[in-house]
Amino acid sequence: MLRHIYTYDGPFALESGAVLDGVSICYHTSCPERGKRPVVWICHALTANSNPAEWWDTLVGPGLLFDTDKYYIVCANILGSCYGTTGPTTYPKAPLHNFPLITIRDLTHAHELLREHLGIEQIDFLVGGSNGGFQSVEWATGYPQRIKNLCLIATSAIVSPWCTATLEAQRMAIKADPTFDQAKDERGGLAGLAAARSMALITYRNYEGYGRTQAETNPDFVLANRAVTYQQYQGQKLCRRFDAYSYYNLTLGVDTHNVGRQRGGVEKALGGITAKTLCIAIDSDILFPVSESRRMAEAIPNAALEVITSNFGHDGFLLEWQQISDCINKHFDLFRK
Amino acid sequence: MLRHIYTYDGPFALESGAVLDGVSICYHTSCPERGKRPVVWICHALTANSNPAEWWDTLVGPGLLFDTDKYYIVCANILGSCYGTTGPTTYPKAPLHNFPLITIRDLTHAHELLREHLGIEQIDFLVGGSNGGFQSVEWATGYPQRIKNLCLIATSAIVSPWCTATLEAQRMAIKADPTFDQAKDERGGLAGLAAARSMALITYRNYEGYGRTQAETNPDFVLANRAVTYQQYQGQKLCRRFDAYSYYNLTLGVDTHNVGRQRGGVEKALGGITAKTLCIAIDSDILFPVSESRRMAEAIPNAALEVITSNFGHDGFLLEWQQISDCINKHFDLFRK
Repeated sequence: MLRHIYTYDGPFALESGAVLDGVSICYHTSCPERGKRPVVWICHALTANSNPAEWWDTLVGPGLLFDTDKYYIVCANILGSCYGTTGPTTYPKAPLHNFPLITIRDLTHAHELLREHLGIEQIDFLVGGSNGGFQSVEWATGYPQRIKNLCLIATSAIVSPWCTATLEAQRMAIKADPTFDQAKDERGGLAGLAAARSMALITYRNYEGYGRTQAETNPDFVLANRAVTYQQYQGQKLCRRFDAYSYYNLTLGVDTHNVGRQRGGVEKALGGITAKTLCIAIDSDILFPVSESRRMAEAIPNAALEVITSNFGHDGFLLEWQQISDCINKHFDLFRK
Repeated sequence: MLRHIYTYDGPFALESGAVLDGVSICYHTSCPERGKRPVVWICHALTANSNPAEWWDTLVGPGLLFDTDKYYIVCANILGSCYGTTGPTTYPKAPLHNFPLITIRDLTHAHELLREHLGIEQIDFLVGGSNGGFQSVEWATGYPQRIKNLCLIATSAIVSPWCTATLEAQRMAIKADPTFDQAKDERGGLAGLAAARSMALITYRNYEGYGRTQAETNPDFVLANRAVTYQQYQGQKLCRRFDAYSYYNLTLGVDTHNVGRQRGGVEKALGGITAKTLCIAIDSDILFPVSESRRMAEAIPNAALEVITSNFGHDGFLLEWQQISDCINKHFDLFRK
């Protein structure tokens, strides 16, 4: 995948009413020019970057489902993130801890800018899991004519109270670290961020997943420790590659997800999607239960639902690549060999 | 219920090897003297107190299942808590943030001291939900002859990696608040405690429970807020009645729960329980899945399993009093009218 930066100089109006003085969008493509290749656009999840060959390396690469030799694959780092696109740590006109609210709809407007810049009239296949699914379903709702085929994995059409509650717990942990509000530099709030990530992991996995990977090895243990070190390690790991300000802002963005806003409600909005759509749910996902995928599949006119099996809950969207690959192959001619 | 304090002056040896210079135990009883009443001993959960007529007011009171007019009901505040029993904020010989580790087994040793003090030879009915269930199953394992009937609700025989992970996320949030380690007084770490409680709630409820009670009312919402204020409110509410040092210590105690320790493993240990036992699981409990109750019911020689239905996950042990009452009535002659 090739890395690019697209800089848009004009004012970028946010849904909240705030205006950014231009935005930079970091994105990757599978080749320098599209040529006649079908366009596969991948939307990334909360803390990922614009290179899906890194975080979805079982699905994106030469000879894989999303074949980098065959398709013009595009993935853009989302607004408010810290992987090259404009966000709290790269926008000097707002304090670190007071970057404007970026809604999911704003993310799709940034994607639209990039699409136009790339001269893409229609996206042959739009796919995203989790927050990437938020962007995908919002984009297909707001601009139905742009999307020919759509795949929504482990996601929903509207943020649930449960999801918001898990994110608020995380934001409370970040705010409990006073270095966040002190905001001296982008390394503020890291102890809080580590705690937040540790909480997030709970919602990404489930009881069975932890049981399989983090069980104590000594049957006479006095103080369980394996899951403890795992949580700490994962918290620290995110701190090495992310910052608390971007994370805080992106979680607020999740809480704005509502395809039905000013469109007569969720069902009516989904009813306007014209893309052939596949919703993939994971049976053990506690963050986005199967019911949320079913709701989308029922409201989108030309949609199907597949439920895949995993012991790893929501993280199944990253881990169960074989089942995801099979489902997409089955439903979309585009990927048939 | 009547409040008492029992003070034990002798050294109290902890499983860790540390020794407390005596302990005070705050406990409630339904009447001043036992007389000929059957003994019903109730073990409370993580942050509850020794008055079950307050936190289980649908089950404990005159004419209720645990009839305060009919039984000698005992409930003791657990060691390390802050409701009158010795804990981090009342033990001057250890710094606030460095109170010795209290294992679940230590909690039962404190219960044993109180039992002896009260002159109770055998407990007719021992019951506990969640952490109260930890104490109950550990007590019945360590002292089988003391317990005639046993009821374990929404609990397990050994802490799961999943449970430990959720608690470590909470402890990381507490530690992200630097006032915890500064430990100037018992009000340290409260921002962290609020975040921890907010996280704990996620594991006490589930997707459906939040959907039923915290849904947004405006279909055009831009930023979801109802679940946000709920999480903040619940965090602050715990801070008004608890402290971060006791909470931190009690969560470490949870991570010591292992009835199999030095007893040849969980199944062998449970095999030594002689009490007639009922395990009650809640179908939607994500913190203590039904499988954990089933494991106990299969390993305890004279045990039955009942699975009750709730939309409120683990919190069902406090809310589904009618089903709990019916199950206990059905299995134990003691409570038949």
